[in-house]
Amino acid sequence: MRTAVVLCAGLAKRMGNSETPKPLLKVAGREILSRTVELLKRNGVERFVFVVNPKNKEKIESFVRSLGVDFSIVVNESPERENGYSLYLAKEEVKEKEFLLVMGDHIYSEEFVKKAVKGKGLIVDELALYTDKEEATKVLCQKGRVKDIGKDIKEFNGYDTGFFVLSRSVFNVAEKIAKEKEKVTMSEIAKRGRIRCTFVSGEFWTDVDTEEDLKRARREIIRSSVKGIGDGLVSRLINRKVSMWISERVVEKVTPMQATLFTFAVGVFSAIVALFSPALGSVLYQISSMVDGVDGEIARASLRTTKFGGWLDSVLDRFVDFSFLSALALWLKPDQSFLPWVFLALFGTLMVSYTTERFKGAYFEDAYEVIKPLRFLPGKRDERVFLIMVFCLLGWIKALFVILALLTNVRVILTLYLVWKERGDR
Amino acid sequence: MRTAVVLCAGLAKRMGNSETPKPLLKVAGREILSRTVELLKRNGVERFVFVVNPKNKEKIESFVRSLGVDFSIVVNESPERENGYSLYLAKEEVKEKEFLLVMGDHIYSEEFVKKAVKGKGLIVDELALYTDKEEATKVLCQKGRVKDIGKDIKEFNGYDTGFFVLSRSVFNVAEKIAKEKEKVTMSEIAKRGRIRCTFVSGEFWTDVDTEEDLKRARREIIRSSVKGIGDGLVSRLINRKVSMWISERVVEKVTPMQATLFTFAVGVFSAIVALFSPALGSVLYQISSMVDGVDGEIARASLRTTKFGGWLDSVLDRFVDFSFLSALALWLKPDQSFLPWVFLALFGTLMVSYTTERFKGAYFEDAYEVIKPLRFLPGKRDERVFLIMVFCLLGWIKALFVILALLTNVRVILTLYLVWKERGDR
Repeated sequence: MRTAVVLCAGLAKRMGNSETPKPLLKVAGREILSRTVELLKRNGVERFVFVVNPKNKEKIESFVRSLGVDFSIVVNESPERENGYSLYLAKEEVKEKEFLLVMGDHIYSEEFVKKAVKGKGLIVDELALYTDKEEATKVLCQKGRVKDIGKDIKEFNGYDTGFFVLSRSVFNVAEKIAKEKEKVTMSEIAKRGRIRCTFVSGEFWTDVDTEEDLKRARREIIRSSVKGIGDGLVSRLINRKVSMWISERVVEKVTPMQATLFTFAVGVFSAIVALFSPALGSVLYQISSMVDGVDGEIARASLRTTKFGGWLDSVLDRFVDFSFLSALALWLKPDQSFLPWVFLALFGTLMVSYTTERFKGAYFEDAYEVIKPLRFLPGKRDERVFLIMVFCLLGWIKALFVILALLTNVRVILTLYLVWKERGDR
Repeated sequence: MRTAVVLCAGLAKRMGNSETPKPLLKVAGREILSRTVELLKRNGVERFVFVVNPKNKEKIESFVRSLGVDFSIVVNESPERENGYSLYLAKEEVKEKEFLLVMGDHIYSEEFVKKAVKGKGLIVDELALYTDKEEATKVLCQKGRVKDIGKDIKEFNGYDTGFFVLSRSVFNVAEKIAKEKEKVTMSEIAKRGRIRCTFVSGEFWTDVDTEEDLKRARREIIRSSVKGIGDGLVSRLINRKVSMWISERVVEKVTPMQATLFTFAVGVFSAIVALFSPALGSVLYQISSMVDGVDGEIARASLRTTKFGGWLDSVLDRFVDFSFLSALALWLKPDQSFLPWVFLALFGTLMVSYTTERFKGAYFEDAYEVIKPLRFLPGKRDERVFLIMVFCLLGWIKALFVILALLTNVRVILTLYLVWKERGDR
């Protein structure tokens, strides 16, 4: 069983007059503390020790209780003695030889935590891309151990992320310092204890000192929540930019399911409009396609993804695509000889998705991840929707059906070929 | 590492004048020995010891080499000393405390092996549904150990399956008997050693003494290869009977891929015919649906299933379904006001499959297995094809599209509802 000590006893001097303790501030639809706990849980932590100060004890305790994890609370009656003293107080609550120590007011991305839990000692970031480097604590790591650490040291090769993988012996170092001095900082413990250090660089993490930090964190969390592996050209150039812009603004207010249903409603509405005006309908269709990324982005950013959400989103997308093309066909009033093109376009449109989804059902792997050439085939949904809009605006509806019929079915045939080539024997 | 000793030194007196050693006889497209080795491999066996007689040594050795497994060959120069003596000769090749012992001329089903490897001692079958009970060796199992064993014992509670999970101490028993007597049978070893026994009852296994045994084995292997979980009513009542009848006859001659492509060809042909004659086309379509089970049945029976096969089969089925309905629509020459019914029927037909396949891609579980009410929804492929044939024979094509549109889309909506109800929160 793995334990994490989470330090929440900081006095939050700089955050102004907010009544909310820093760890309980919301970022991307979730309190910092709930985010950290969820990420640690996903990486094997089963027990949590929260060190709090007398002022925020009640708030943090009742919040943590709502998370439904195995936890205990340690009160640091002298928070002015600094974070190393808080760690020292947690001593009796840690039974394992190795445990994690994280700062309750830091925000970490999923990727960061995933790598950090595998490290030893202090996790150091060479780059610190996302935090205020002036204010950050610098670390000089030599031969795998902390040689020097501090805000104003001259020679350093990384930044203190506030994330530690420690052995129990660290409590002895903390105790020694506590007997000598009033202030016990983690920096001093790391230096005196010659704690090991592990580099995890370039992933998002930040400490939170100002409102600006919170906003930046939200933006970065949304940005890192884009799962772009199946994205086409239009998505990368246009749709994702729009959806991320929206996600950043609604992530605190809207649930992923609400976003899914809203996108679906816009899509269905676009099909109804297309019955009367393909041009107008197609613009609405493109709008629904731009909004389509929001549900997944805010779900991942707020760590609320469900498989059901992904499933429903796919099924509803197929319905919108089929409805829109059907509406377009009804507007066109095709004669008998043109009907095969309509059927082929409808078939190919659904099968582009069916072939890759069925692949996942067979191999339990993402087709785009394991068969890389698939990524370069044109005709993904974002590209088709954009193409449809362009042709509808130009009024070339017949040509559109012919092109869609060819594009999608060639894509399906190439998918058959690529899957056969890579997986034909298993 | 788990080792299996496979006894292939039998003299095969009763099998007539065949030149082929019994373990190399083919059943359901695969040699008995290759079947046993494959099933043991799938259940964790990594090393094989084959005990052969001087007459069949060369044939068995070169065959086993082609299987690409880690193996050694032990020659029993005195096969007339019986199978217990063969086991005794394998002593030096077995290093582990526990090992498996199986008869090279017995045929076991996948389910039998899966259960048997978890047992201890002699695996005993209370029922022996599939083998000649007169000829079989009976076992009296008392307090978990072999009390009595033999062909003609009066009191018994099971049959000897020739499958053992043994500890090395069995070699001491074998050695003792070998010093006393000429003939060393496994039966005597089991009785004298008071070997433990485990019941595994009702699964298919048989020893092979006659041509009739082989034929029966083929039939049973095909029968147990039907994976009926997604089967509809028509499939259970008609299609599976036809496909099993065919599978039994072609399993030795046709590969699963050939069967898939043949079925596909019949399906596409049926759609082309439907352009001119819906009635005739629909009969061909129903035939392709009856043949559709053959590829999967012979693949499972001959232990040659691949994920690619399942994937391709699904994709091609969708193509055939869509083609047939499109052809029917082209034959109908629908006017503008009827087109929505055609579109809805096409959409629903694909989505019945899409929703459940996408479920597997999301949850990595079979929707029909984990959401049982789905099994009772009408409108599975076999049922739709049959319905299409009936309406085409009656000439009610318009009514068919309306019914299909309703049936499939109601099914899709119910699927959405059931999945949401069971999995909406994860």
